[in-house]
Amino acid sequence: MSQTVSDLESRHRPLLDQALEAIRSRAYFSAYPESPSPRVYGETAAADGQAAFESLLGGEFPLQTPGADGVVATEKSPYGLPLDVRYPRLAPAGVDALIEAARVGLPAWRDAGPTARTVACMEILARLHARVFELANAVQHTSGQAFVMAFQAGGAHALDRALEALAYAYAEMTRHPETAVWEKPGRGEPLRMEKTFTAVPRGVALVIGCNTFPTWNSWPGLFASLVTGNPVVVKPHPGAVLPLAITVQVAQEVLGELGFDPHLVTLAAEDPADGLAKVLASRPEVKLVDYTGSSAFGDWLEQNATQAQVYTEKSGINTVVIDSTDSFKGMCFNLAFSLALYSGQMCTAPQNVFVPADGIDTDDGHRSFDDVGAGIAAGLGKLLGDDAKAVELLGGVVNAGVLERLGSLPESAEVVIASRDVPHPAYDDATVRTPTVLAIDVKDTDIYETECFGPVSYLIRTSGTDESIETFRRTVLEHGAMTAAVHSTSDEVVARMRSAALDAGVALSENLTGQVFVNQSAAFSDFHGTGANPAANASYTDGAYVAGRFRIVQSRRHI
Amino acid sequence: MSQTVSDLESRHRPLLDQALEAIRSRAYFSAYPESPSPRVYGETAAADGQAAFESLLGGEFPLQTPGADGVVATEKSPYGLPLDVRYPRLAPAGVDALIEAARVGLPAWRDAGPTARTVACMEILARLHARVFELANAVQHTSGQAFVMAFQAGGAHALDRALEALAYAYAEMTRHPETAVWEKPGRGEPLRMEKTFTAVPRGVALVIGCNTFPTWNSWPGLFASLVTGNPVVVKPHPGAVLPLAITVQVAQEVLGELGFDPHLVTLAAEDPADGLAKVLASRPEVKLVDYTGSSAFGDWLEQNATQAQVYTEKSGINTVVIDSTDSFKGMCFNLAFSLALYSGQMCTAPQNVFVPADGIDTDDGHRSFDDVGAGIAAGLGKLLGDDAKAVELLGGVVNAGVLERLGSLPESAEVVIASRDVPHPAYDDATVRTPTVLAIDVKDTDIYETECFGPVSYLIRTSGTDESIETFRRTVLEHGAMTAAVHSTSDEVVARMRSAALDAGVALSENLTGQVFVNQSAAFSDFHGTGANPAANASYTDGAYVAGRFRIVQSRRHI
Repeated sequence: MSQTVSDLESRHRPLLDQALEAIRSRAYFSAYPESPSPRVYGETAAADGQAAFESLLGGEFPLQTPGADGVVATEKSPYGLPLDVRYPRLAPAGVDALIEAARVGLPAWRDAGPTARTVACMEILARLHARVFELANAVQHTSGQAFVMAFQAGGAHALDRALEALAYAYAEMTRHPETAVWEKPGRGEPLRMEKTFTAVPRGVALVIGCNTFPTWNSWPGLFASLVTGNPVVVKPHPGAVLPLAITVQVAQEVLGELGFDPHLVTLAAEDPADGLAKVLASRPEVKLVDYTGSSAFGDWLEQNATQAQVYTEKSGINTVVIDSTDSFKGMCFNLAFSLALYSGQMCTAPQNVFVPADGIDTDDGHRSFDDVGAGIAAGLGKLLGDDAKAVELLGGVVNAGVLERLGSLPESAEVVIASRDVPHPAYDDATVRTPTVLAIDVKDTDIYETECFGPVSYLIRTSGTDESIETFRRTVLEHGAMTAAVHSTSDEVVARMRSAALDAGVALSENLTGQVFVNQSAAFSDFHGTGANPAANASYTDGAYVAGRFRIVQSRRHI
Repeated sequence: MSQTVSDLESRHRPLLDQALEAIRSRAYFSAYPESPSPRVYGETAAADGQAAFESLLGGEFPLQTPGADGVVATEKSPYGLPLDVRYPRLAPAGVDALIEAARVGLPAWRDAGPTARTVACMEILARLHARVFELANAVQHTSGQAFVMAFQAGGAHALDRALEALAYAYAEMTRHPETAVWEKPGRGEPLRMEKTFTAVPRGVALVIGCNTFPTWNSWPGLFASLVTGNPVVVKPHPGAVLPLAITVQVAQEVLGELGFDPHLVTLAAEDPADGLAKVLASRPEVKLVDYTGSSAFGDWLEQNATQAQVYTEKSGINTVVIDSTDSFKGMCFNLAFSLALYSGQMCTAPQNVFVPADGIDTDDGHRSFDDVGAGIAAGLGKLLGDDAKAVELLGGVVNAGVLERLGSLPESAEVVIASRDVPHPAYDDATVRTPTVLAIDVKDTDIYETECFGPVSYLIRTSGTDESIETFRRTVLEHGAMTAAVHSTSDEVVARMRSAALDAGVALSENLTGQVFVNQSAAFSDFHGTGANPAANASYTDGAYVAGRFRIVQSRRHI
């Protein structure tokens, strides 16, 4: 039986209100349970989700893309599982037809208004949540994330981030009344007018997905653009199509049931040789672009897709300044976890760790530079000593580029911790690596001033915390960063780091020695990226992330 | 005696609260009386303001600009009054020094926080208001606006628009708490963190002023950028420097008194041959650009100043669709007023008036196409028949470009109403012209599909209202518009125009036959521009206009 918008409004309004309150308070909130436990999701959910995922393998994904011709199968599981899912191939020659089809449904979607669009998008999230185990498998076998992380970052947390974006967009679209009465006093009768304010979309939106976080990094932009009335073309990374194919399928299903044009959301899977992202981003009809990936293409988009508002998350050099600590073991363990999680393949994982050459004061007494390296090594040993446990933290290596970088490390650097190949107990052909840590000097700018994406980090000797902070400020201003952290028992040092972080425009985590990690950001509370340094020009989620996705068009008349 | 931020907060908080309520309701609100009457402003205010203005003529404006070398005097009153005010000249060679000086005060201004910055900016507005008669004279003799219009649009209404921008920016900066506590429930003790959110500026802001509305079009961007923490370089139009020189002077005075660096706001007056706007807009430190002026340079900025967020108001072809009316005289008079006001030199003045070739139904019976022209002519006759009254509506011709266009009208067009030269009773050398109206056919796209800025409009014969609406939709989508209007007694026609206006992304005025005119937008209620068509990429004022002018940088720690 088909749903109506009014059904959906009754169903989703309470959660929308909670989300609206959460974006005001930025306190803890989560709408989608992060534990894949049978106690939460039911006894058969995991097996059902896995079966649904497996039923897609080796087949043609049931999705039709206007303008597509033939199929592509471009994914490769980092665990060695054969995927061979075939998707409609959109070649550049088909882009005209795709854009045309995307625009057909725009007027009706616009005219439905902010509330209808918001609850329709919330229904899409609810249906995606119902398929969260299937999605987790899809994320695991495209990104290489271990299952629990894929379930959380690729499922529950991604849903939270999407809902957060919906809440900001709804708040922005409804901050003004739909109709206002304007009455200007005068000498005689007042002048009276009625004014109508309508949120109108910008045009076609393009979402360009990444390989490592196909849902978490795509859903905020996708839903922010869709809910503000824009048709969305989803161009997945060729290595991570399935999670977004499922997303598009669910979106089309809900839109169709509600009587909207399903092609308001479309999948543009490509043969990588086609360079489809550039073709799509250059179209005059495309007015919004959301992108996660390399700085090179992100910078290209910012400089060339000038007909569009472009939101980018690129790369940077995430930095840790170690000055002192009241929990040496906690600090080292926390840092080790951050380096090990998904083998450092997170845009938020630390890379540059500045440590004074003459060591640091700790609760275990003064510790030398080498002791810090040894402490991190001990933490990694504890986390990764057992192969079966290690693979659940490390996940798989997402692609060949990461392996190549790991195989061509600077020879001048001292290897403090070497990377090792970890056999996977369940997947013989999995590619799993532990992180390596290299010791270098603050003079080795050629090494640490570029991002080495993957399980590689640097312990960098400085003359002291002053130099650490100044180098942090300068390098992040120049090269960007998604995260920064400081360890210090001195309020004055922490204050100086905060000030430097404001200058550099990067989020700062202070003295994390427990179960919160610098590379994690919690939806509704932590802003992800700032838009204030070269690593990203936008943030999940603030007003700036949503306000430019629609315009207000008014009409007025005397009453 | 010097002011403190706390004094200012007590003084300005009530008005800020009113402004915040006004931007929520978009109902009528104005903080600065628009009547230059002695009953409102006092018996001596007008004479004092004029004297203050005259004391500046022929002298060196008391302002120091870092990096400046020598002086320029580039203004020419459309009334023929010798101005000869000399300003510090910023040549391209001085830009390094200017940018460096602009940045010095940034950290302290940032660290003062949103409330301190907001009340400081409100104090600047209060001081500008205290000089509103002086400003009105300055606007009159640079833009050519008649005195009352200069007082209103250049003074009171511009202040309202500036306050509106401050209110939106304040609301956006304070929508999140400065500090939030995040408590995540878990199996054991909850995870607890304190998070700090700080609004940080983008960098140096550039405001590029225009000749016709030096304050009204510059203040929203200037104050939106300043209040969000950005140092602002003001590059006035060479023909309208004085109103912005006074603005910068007042801003520096207030900033200095409060202990902030006065060079947070600077004036960059140029020799026009230097092309300073391009030089400034290309600087990597410049992260925000506000621009009002020609489409050619606005498009250049959008396509080339990609390191910055660019807000443009350019030009378009404002359109009126006449279908029918229940007040033929009211419609014609209202339209005549819109054409005559400031000789059509408003970015919001109508240019293309579509009328069915076989005429329209009215309260005076069926009227032919020619009757509509005659009706507008009668309206203009009434408004402009008396020279002394005419000049108070028409103002002066802002620059030679307008005269050139008026002198080279398309020969194929039929002159329905000819322009005439109006002698000014007070200024012998004033250049004053009445509007001309030309009749053309909808096939004459080469004539009406470009903007002819100034006192020129077209009555365009169509096959009927269907063609009028479709041509409106198509031409505004292609060329943009700041305003649109419809006259119809048919609800169905008005509904179709509203729909076309949503498609074209332009504000629509319906059946204006009284004392509200299509070219006027009221601060706090009417959005000026939409950002949804090629005439402008931004709007005064919505969330999108302010949200991108700062970023949120967070820090977090366990508690």
